[in-house]
Amino acid sequence: MFEAAELGQSVNNSDFKKRELELRAKLLTLQYRTRDFARFPVLIDFAGVDGAGKGTTINMLNKWMDPRFLRTTGYVAPTEEERGRPLFWRYWRDLPLKGRIGLYLGGRYSQPLLGRVYAKMSDHDFDERIGQINLFEDTLAHDGALILKFWMHLGKKAQKARLDALSKDPLLSYRVSENDYHNHERYSDFVDTAEKIITRTNRGHAPWHIVEGADPNYRHLRIGEIIADELARHLDHFDTVTFSRQPRSEGADLSSHVADSGPTVFDKLDLSQKVRKNDYFKRLDKVQARLGELGRKAYEQGQSTVLVFEGPDASGKGGSIRRTVWSLDARAYRVHQFAAPTAHEQQFHYLWRFWNRLPHAGHFAVFDRSWYGRVLVERVEGFASEDEWRRAYNEINDFEDQIVGHGTLLLKFWLHISKDEQLKRFEKRRDSAYKHWKLTEEDWRNREQFEAYERVAHDVIQYTSTRRAPWVLIEGDDKHHARLAVMKTVVDHLKKLVD
Amino acid sequence: MFEAAELGQSVNNSDFKKRELELRAKLLTLQYRTRDFARFPVLIDFAGVDGAGKGTTINMLNKWMDPRFLRTTGYVAPTEEERGRPLFWRYWRDLPLKGRIGLYLGGRYSQPLLGRVYAKMSDHDFDERIGQINLFEDTLAHDGALILKFWMHLGKKAQKARLDALSKDPLLSYRVSENDYHNHERYSDFVDTAEKIITRTNRGHAPWHIVEGADPNYRHLRIGEIIADELARHLDHFDTVTFSRQPRSEGADLSSHVADSGPTVFDKLDLSQKVRKNDYFKRLDKVQARLGELGRKAYEQGQSTVLVFEGPDASGKGGSIRRTVWSLDARAYRVHQFAAPTAHEQQFHYLWRFWNRLPHAGHFAVFDRSWYGRVLVERVEGFASEDEWRRAYNEINDFEDQIVGHGTLLLKFWLHISKDEQLKRFEKRRDSAYKHWKLTEEDWRNREQFEAYERVAHDVIQYTSTRRAPWVLIEGDDKHHARLAVMKTVVDHLKKLVD
Repeated sequence: MFEAAELGQSVNNSDFKKRELELRAKLLTLQYRTRDFARFPVLIDFAGVDGAGKGTTINMLNKWMDPRFLRTTGYVAPTEEERGRPLFWRYWRDLPLKGRIGLYLGGRYSQPLLGRVYAKMSDHDFDERIGQINLFEDTLAHDGALILKFWMHLGKKAQKARLDALSKDPLLSYRVSENDYHNHERYSDFVDTAEKIITRTNRGHAPWHIVEGADPNYRHLRIGEIIADELARHLDHFDTVTFSRQPRSEGADLSSHVADSGPTVFDKLDLSQKVRKNDYFKRLDKVQARLGELGRKAYEQGQSTVLVFEGPDASGKGGSIRRTVWSLDARAYRVHQFAAPTAHEQQFHYLWRFWNRLPHAGHFAVFDRSWYGRVLVERVEGFASEDEWRRAYNEINDFEDQIVGHGTLLLKFWLHISKDEQLKRFEKRRDSAYKHWKLTEEDWRNREQFEAYERVAHDVIQYTSTRRAPWVLIEGDDKHHARLAVMKTVVDHLKKLVD
Repeated sequence: MFEAAELGQSVNNSDFKKRELELRAKLLTLQYRTRDFARFPVLIDFAGVDGAGKGTTINMLNKWMDPRFLRTTGYVAPTEEERGRPLFWRYWRDLPLKGRIGLYLGGRYSQPLLGRVYAKMSDHDFDERIGQINLFEDTLAHDGALILKFWMHLGKKAQKARLDALSKDPLLSYRVSENDYHNHERYSDFVDTAEKIITRTNRGHAPWHIVEGADPNYRHLRIGEIIADELARHLDHFDTVTFSRQPRSEGADLSSHVADSGPTVFDKLDLSQKVRKNDYFKRLDKVQARLGELGRKAYEQGQSTVLVFEGPDASGKGGSIRRTVWSLDARAYRVHQFAAPTAHEQQFHYLWRFWNRLPHAGHFAVFDRSWYGRVLVERVEGFASEDEWRRAYNEINDFEDQIVGHGTLLLKFWLHISKDEQLKRFEKRRDSAYKHWKLTEEDWRNREQFEAYERVAHDVIQYTSTRRAPWVLIEGDDKHHARLAVMKTVVDHLKKLVD
């Protein structure tokens, strides 16, 4: 696989200067076109053999392009903050804005490569990681991202020669460590693993480019030219794709995808269940105290919790959340409420704002509405195309799988109410001194589609109730019943983990 | 000081319900007025005696107001990320947007209070910390922030009674730890220290409110009512203040504050200094290698570095920066370039975006233009009022003092060039295939004020060249000389710290 990158290709200085001039102008023009018109981010990863010039290439790109719209991110061992979240948290956090270019060093490929060479990573973990990397790239590429990956190569002899040359140079010998020679001895393991990784992660929408690294002139030009070509191609291709981000004027057209009749998962809910007031307060005190206790243990043990609340307007999400967090330490939880993404959030993949809010180790993050907006309101209002919301089921399942895989407790509550009960609550809100802000024209409009929403929600629950992250359906017509049911569920799950 | 908060004040449930209804409507209206019209953030801090109900009060405020525009932040021991920066970094990071309300628990007052009681903090450190807190609050309050601080109080007996009651309740006993009784024994030290802190940090623009915490009804209403009153007052007061954020149409009017003649700090620079090409490349290789070596050591030792570059347009900042970082590990540095703040950044105090970019432990952060924009371009263009830019000298000195105080190496370079040299460079940029993007109409316009800028810069350097954070003036007419001088300065300072 790497023979073509061991040919000793080089470019002399005077040729370099000529080609550099042209390339630089081209890269800049493309960079500005991207900044001004592209509705996609650009991710460029650098991996490869030690000494193949990853760092100087990045420095050169910073020189050639306008560094204000480039960002270089290098990864070392995960920090405390990073260890508290799923592995890919830091890669999501560091995504470039749409129109911007991110250069990455030591990124998602670094750990499986080194882990494999030094035999710290099992076959199973390795395979799983490769799968995660592919899903990460798919998710971004399907959303339009341009993803480029460079493998910078040196033959074994060239690597040795480079290490020796550095060691002998009194100015540069500091660059060579014991570790570099140690890695060099593992050269063939290293290259074998690289081949495995590259073959399994080289896809049309996230291709690898193998570049010979021995001669700086050659590698800088080659990489610069590939970036220019790929950027130009992606810009042209993207221009021809229509990305509709406007809601459909006629509103939801759900008829074609949602069955008109037939039972839904909500039919089996018994919405008539009630808890009497006296009983409620007694049980509330008890379950809140228990939650406080478990919350404290979770904090001490670093057990994180993510609670998701979805359901029709006025189904009691806010009230259930408030009572659930009531006895938790205010330092240890955060409630996130989601409406339409802000202008800043729209500059990223829709999952970005949720990734960014995953809790610290030991903390609770409560999501009042969530990433399910993609397959609910965005679908119904036409903000997400059919392609997008269909794809989203997998993206969401993958996201949740990573949350659960990290050891976080994830509970997803669907609070359900009948259409009659919703009307009662709307009327009560309208007449309340301090709740009327909760009721908008939009709520009344949404109400007209109550049944359609219910069918869409049925789909959502079917597709996203997985073994590791099942939905908990809550009968919401009686608030007392609903709140206790939510809290009891949290207690039941949390106690298994921390008690 | 606390006698008035040990009177056993209480509110019965039926009164509470009546007053709550009214208060809730009032708070919401004020919150929306703040969100929609206020050009200031609201910071509400909760401190006080254990068991005085800080947490439940915060939960109550989250219930009363619209939680989408409230944010609660609780602090525990600093994380790895936080320890890598000056102490106040986390408080800057967590400032609310303008128009939003932040609730804080365990914030800036927690450490000096506990540190003092348990005698871990020396008199000197305590005094210094109080000074820092006052400066922090001054800086924000002068920019318009509403700062409220609640001391929630319990008498010694009331505290004991509360601890005992909790211990006896099988549901709530988990809330009481050994530590709580331990703190209780120190009650009088605790209260003495609190009194000292409160008297020294109670100022008109950041007042303390002492609230009796024994009865939840009383304390919730009392705190809610204070917040409502203060919010209403601040909104009214703020409306009458004109905050001009529009540049003056006539551009800079510098005549009144800047002496027309007389020597400046730039006069003594010998701009004719030159380094010949051959000599330059030899010395460049050497100093870059040395920088690479020192950068690696700094990384290993966790020694952070902040480099600031200021100077006229085309004075060679970008080129000097590129060569300075050339031999550093791309993972260990980040270059930040600053132009006008984005819409998001404008939602915060002007220093916020700089605080947020202070480097990780062991990293370099390079600022291509910086917080000095406040006293340079913002002054000249009229974006900052006279009051604002004059105040900024102190704010900047304080900011830098915290950076240096944390052990970070801070170097501030002023690259200076003559007006003739600038013209040459502008013309060269204009004609270059890949540098013309660097030159804008604005640059030509700014050039007309070259001398005025020089005088303003003279002021800046005088006011902000402190013993701990002096300016380094670099003769910039010869690029070779300038780059080497910059790099040599970094080497000289860094080697003292890490070699």
